[in-house]
Amino acid sequence: MERTQVAIIGAGPAGLLLGRMLELAGVDAVILEHRSQSYVEGRIRAGMLEHRTMRLLEELGLDERMRREAAVHHGLELRFDRQRYRIPMAELTGGCTAVMYSQQEIVRDAIAARLASGLPLEFGVDDVRLDGVDTDAPKVRYRAADGSEQVLACDFIAGCDGFHGVSRRTIPADVLTVYEHDYPFAWLGVLADVQPSTFELIYACHERGFALHSMRSSEVSRFYLQVPPDEDLAGWSDDRIWAELRLRLGTDDGWTLAEGTISTKSITAMRSFVVEPMQYGRLFLAGDAAHIVPPTAAKGLNLAAADVRLLADALCTWFESGDRALLDGYSDDALRGVWRAQQFSRSMTSLLHHSPANPMEWRLQHAELKHVCTSEAAMKSFCENYVGLPAAGRIHRRAPRAEMTERTGS
Amino acid sequence: MERTQVAIIGAGPAGLLLGRMLELAGVDAVILEHRSQSYVEGRIRAGMLEHRTMRLLEELGLDERMRREAAVHHGLELRFDRQRYRIPMAELTGGCTAVMYSQQEIVRDAIAARLASGLPLEFGVDDVRLDGVDTDAPKVRYRAADGSEQVLACDFIAGCDGFHGVSRRTIPADVLTVYEHDYPFAWLGVLADVQPSTFELIYACHERGFALHSMRSSEVSRFYLQVPPDEDLAGWSDDRIWAELRLRLGTDDGWTLAEGTISTKSITAMRSFVVEPMQYGRLFLAGDAAHIVPPTAAKGLNLAAADVRLLADALCTWFESGDRALLDGYSDDALRGVWRAQQFSRSMTSLLHHSPANPMEWRLQHAELKHVCTSEAAMKSFCENYVGLPAAGRIHRRAPRAEMTERTGS
Repeated sequence: MERTQVAIIGAGPAGLLLGRMLELAGVDAVILEHRSQSYVEGRIRAGMLEHRTMRLLEELGLDERMRREAAVHHGLELRFDRQRYRIPMAELTGGCTAVMYSQQEIVRDAIAARLASGLPLEFGVDDVRLDGVDTDAPKVRYRAADGSEQVLACDFIAGCDGFHGVSRRTIPADVLTVYEHDYPFAWLGVLADVQPSTFELIYACHERGFALHSMRSSEVSRFYLQVPPDEDLAGWSDDRIWAELRLRLGTDDGWTLAEGTISTKSITAMRSFVVEPMQYGRLFLAGDAAHIVPPTAAKGLNLAAADVRLLADALCTWFESGDRALLDGYSDDALRGVWRAQQFSRSMTSLLHHSPANPMEWRLQHAELKHVCTSEAAMKSFCENYVGLPAAGRIHRRAPRAEMTERTGS
Repeated sequence: MERTQVAIIGAGPAGLLLGRMLELAGVDAVILEHRSQSYVEGRIRAGMLEHRTMRLLEELGLDERMRREAAVHHGLELRFDRQRYRIPMAELTGGCTAVMYSQQEIVRDAIAARLASGLPLEFGVDDVRLDGVDTDAPKVRYRAADGSEQVLACDFIAGCDGFHGVSRRTIPADVLTVYEHDYPFAWLGVLADVQPSTFELIYACHERGFALHSMRSSEVSRFYLQVPPDEDLAGWSDDRIWAELRLRLGTDDGWTLAEGTISTKSITAMRSFVVEPMQYGRLFLAGDAAHIVPPTAAKGLNLAAADVRLLADALCTWFESGDRALLDGYSDDALRGVWRAQQFSRSMTSLLHHSPANPMEWRLQHAELKHVCTSEAAMKSFCENYVGLPAAGRIHRRAPRAEMTERTGS
């Protein structure tokens, strides 16, 4: 039977960033991932890093490629009634920016760093079972990629295996309170080989539905269109997508949308989901395993990073001193930020999408949009939420013993 | 057949303030009111005057008793989770305050001023019909208090006769778009003979429902409790009301509620209602005739005053110069403020009331309440909405001919 201090289930951003923080603190961890390396590295996800998430990658030494490749946004644009309103995010938040760096890039960087450190990271594991999570000696049983049955003894388990993962389902149902809301629309997401027609994100509120113009690089644009939740992708030809984007993003000042070849299309449901508490015995949930936000405010990745920063601090403190106050408080601490982000994501979603069934709501949205774009206090409050909360949780670093020994020996 | 320039239907705050503005500009008006003088002066309504409304009363010379009797509030208190948070309204809005002066006091002052000026104001009129509002020669037919049938020819009609009045119903239904929303709760309102336990309003968000501690004077307190929309007043004994107020307003810091004799109880439904446009031919709607807000943000009276300020400016401009641009734009101009106030009233209502059917909403409300009470930008945005928009519309004043003549003659 193998042994480690922390078994991390899942090699998405939550599991990998947690692994990196434990590594810097000298805490042993094993990361187990059901999918293959190529799958997780190729899984396309949007990425808009809040200020605190960008800073976390710096602190973890995972920022080298991000610094080279990511675009830094100092503002964003809201559009409605064919008018454009720039929201000067950085100016209103004391310099906070949003960094465009996709989730899969963070995953690639973190996997490369972990492999370079020679630390355990197993892909393709199957049939993961978490045993004794309510005891002091939890175990992870799983079938390794080579087909062998494995048992991993550990002090703690970090459930970073997403919404569909085994971790949350391991917690007895009567312990958890589930909060969920399904929105009456979905997003049709499109990647197109065309230079973005904007340097900053454009959020458009249109009576035909919400549209978002984002970007992956200087040659690849990303677009989203609000569609009904049960929409059939087959009904969306490339021509129809471009026509709809032109309409919803259109302005009265001659702005034009550059069009190109659409390489991928997909439809994503929009939901809010939270479980409380985010811990049970020695099992701690982080990221999508515990909560899902609608994508409008791009908070999902940032919440996952905020969760594991708190969790790493709590685990490291326990290993360093035996003090379990942070571990005991993990769920409450994490949930404060989760609910804050849920609330903003919900309100931004409601503000920008169109529910044709409710014409009064549409008028109220317009009144609020105008307010957000004209009142400095309202705009500042919006920006504070958009750029995210301050980071919480200390990054622990192992005392550099090797160096000390060398110095002592010299 | 009598003749006037403006026939004003309704002697509530909208009609009376409009009459006063026209008086100052030297425009003739007749005010017709279905109810008796004692009824309209005794009709108890809350009154929290926005800064612009208080200033309007000053400009109209209707502020003398208000200055003596009204309490000026520089902040308000939010309560939830048995904690208290003071919102320093004046500090965050450059000195804007809220003035506690009940609607019926404004009505009394305005009636007294009109009677002192010897201007037409008829109570107890019945069977009011508005004829030819889409022509250049509208007429108001009605039965006067003495039973005689009357016809009043006029240039314009101001429909200030409230939600149930005849004015809005005179406009062909296919001309109007109606927006309405009924909230899933009502307010049980209570007047009690007891010194208020607070100097500023207390808005409490509690899992048993919203509660509001307001006041009429140093000896009379006003309370409101969220109840189901179909609630039976008979189920609310005085003891139950006090027990519920103690619970919902209770804090952990030993604050206590002074109790006294309850003099009146009533239940008010909560709704949002707007019609567009607010004008048709020579008929112009103002106040409750065109829109209803839920009472949470106390915007109803203030919106009525804002409407008639715009309308008076438009009418006076027309009479002075024949320029009809302001008249043509009246509905659009008024509706901007109406929708702004509707949006804030809706959001403040959602923020503070408890809908037991939606536990997720309750968590999101808490996240937002904490945000409003801790982020200065969010708090400032809240206060800007609470103290209201800047005044719009010029107060016209008749050239003081009498004085000029005297001077010329001396």
